[in-house]
Amino acid sequence: MKAFGETVAAVDHGGSLGRARALFPHAPEPFVDLSTGINPHSYPLFDLPTSALARLPEAARLQDLKAAAVLAYGVPSVDHVMAAPGTQSLLPQIASLMPPGRAMVLGPTYAEHARAAALAGHTVTEIGDFEALAEADLAIVVNPNNPDGRVVSREHLLALAGRLAAKGGILVVDEAFMDVGPRAESLAGAVGHAGLVVLRSFGKFFGLAGLRLGFALAPAAITARLEALFGPWAVAGPALEYGVRALADVEWQAHMRATLASEAERLDALFSRFGIVVAGGCPLFRYLDLPNAGDLFRALGERGILLRHFADRPRALRAGLPGSAVEWQRLETALSERAAALPANAEETVR
Amino acid sequence: MKAFGETVAAVDHGGSLGRARALFPHAPEPFVDLSTGINPHSYPLFDLPTSALARLPEAARLQDLKAAAVLAYGVPSVDHVMAAPGTQSLLPQIASLMPPGRAMVLGPTYAEHARAAALAGHTVTEIGDFEALAEADLAIVVNPNNPDGRVVSREHLLALAGRLAAKGGILVVDEAFMDVGPRAESLAGAVGHAGLVVLRSFGKFFGLAGLRLGFALAPAAITARLEALFGPWAVAGPALEYGVRALADVEWQAHMRATLASEAERLDALFSRFGIVVAGGCPLFRYLDLPNAGDLFRALGERGILLRHFADRPRALRAGLPGSAVEWQRLETALSERAAALPANAEETVR
Repeated sequence: MKAFGETVAAVDHGGSLGRARALFPHAPEPFVDLSTGINPHSYPLFDLPTSALARLPEAARLQDLKAAAVLAYGVPSVDHVMAAPGTQSLLPQIASLMPPGRAMVLGPTYAEHARAAALAGHTVTEIGDFEALAEADLAIVVNPNNPDGRVVSREHLLALAGRLAAKGGILVVDEAFMDVGPRAESLAGAVGHAGLVVLRSFGKFFGLAGLRLGFALAPAAITARLEALFGPWAVAGPALEYGVRALADVEWQAHMRATLASEAERLDALFSRFGIVVAGGCPLFRYLDLPNAGDLFRALGERGILLRHFADRPRALRAGLPGSAVEWQRLETALSERAAALPANAEETVR
Repeated sequence: MKAFGETVAAVDHGGSLGRARALFPHAPEPFVDLSTGINPHSYPLFDLPTSALARLPEAARLQDLKAAAVLAYGVPSVDHVMAAPGTQSLLPQIASLMPPGRAMVLGPTYAEHARAAALAGHTVTEIGDFEALAEADLAIVVNPNNPDGRVVSREHLLALAGRLAAKGGILVVDEAFMDVGPRAESLAGAVGHAGLVVLRSFGKFFGLAGLRLGFALAPAAITARLEALFGPWAVAGPALEYGVRALADVEWQAHMRATLASEAERLDALFSRFGIVVAGGCPLFRYLDLPNAGDLFRALGERGILLRHFADRPRALRAGLPGSAVEWQRLETALSERAAALPANAEETVR
């Protein structure tokens, strides 16, 4: 057995009610969980056929899912689509497509990318300069970025992919939030290019994160390798059924995009009323930049409103969308109570 | 990017209705699918909480699942339990726990083990002699074996694990069918031992193969490595909920073991009436050994009864259990029709 000497530390995440309860044991329940970027309006639930639970997933149904992904994401063909039980489980396998080398992540961003590259044996650096990514063997860009919403243009990414491919490298573009992003910048249509891997998430936009479904869009040699690793029944029956239906439901998707854009505006307006600056994000989450982010995180947490804070970024918070009138009201009330409790001169530090 | 020059051919499996229809386009539908070893009597379905689909799986719920697995399988502690979206996806990752070397699979057996070890870069041989496994760096034993039901004793396996561990090797014991096997021979209680990895499947015994849930039981360093690779949300919400409930339901399990044993006897008796010899198996599938296996496969297939045949073993067939009175009747009728159609002297070749 290999020695797994280098411990790769686990990453902290939003979305855990257990963790919320441990942090804020006196908060009123249920929590209003704004700590993720998952759509609170899930795709309409439907009764699954018994076979989706009882039988092994059918190869033909997986083909249906890939065909739906081709149309939904604009991929050249099903040969460029690999379906996985969530993109998370793909990250170390994609990082292992090449021998250990230099991995560079455009950051700050979703921390699992650096962890996965380290697990695969790479030397990992997180850098803020896009141009420097050309030095990498494995470059990783989250687009639009989580948590700040920064977008890199398709043109720049394609140029980078070309430079990396020329020396046998790979560019991974994680488009987990591209369903609500500037879709013209998606690289899903370009995944025939050597050395380009695009990741798409199903659960975030469709509000079904529990199902575990994600896609690697890549050259056929890479999708074939990933399929071989995950085997013939990688995607569970429930995820197959929801994926086939929801990815083809362009009407729901168009309606939901408009809804989320409008709710994101509403959230910005609400924060703004209380002097809280929204500095970026995408319609599924807003990125807050403020001097006393920890204070706001705690003040809301104690009132049962959970935002996402980042241990290494004391000015940053991320806020997902409330999912109901009750949740909007609780957020507004919590912000009002906090504002009333602040000393008169504190407002300036909030701004 | 690495060159994936060595193509590892896909493995043929039972359980595909698409394939059945292609083979037997004129067969009456629905097919009676006896081509797998999956329990046709699934654990009682229940309504899932919306959160199981909509929210990210909770870390606390995963702990519940591991605790249930500890009790159900007799594992020393939750540190020795890793839960995955099906054991299938674990195979290449477990084979990658060691540098490429000599992998030996006790065969003939479930073909995915050899494929996974080859994917991990090992030189793979399938051997029939248990003692020779001691020469391996990675030894793999399916126990009880699929498809013939052969059982290797716990004592022999422990001795082998000790010999492999002494030189840094690993023994993988796939106990996919041990829920209905001779459970006293299970190694789940011994997974603290260095170099021993035990695999357990959830979907087969509980008849919920579509959910994708399986376990690696292993030393804590190995379960930690596998958890790091699959990430924090490896098991989908529906699989978590069913796993927690069903693994704790010892009453259902005891009843089901008795039911399956009795139905396996009934199936043997039925085959025997038609001169078909059951040469082995376990309560979830029977192993048939007969000179004209291909003829029986086709005769039943044309009547919509699907067995599992093996391209490289012309005398072998595997038959799962019919799931209803209608299915039992269709099997009996199909066997009768075939017997009537056989020439008078053919019965001897059947025996």
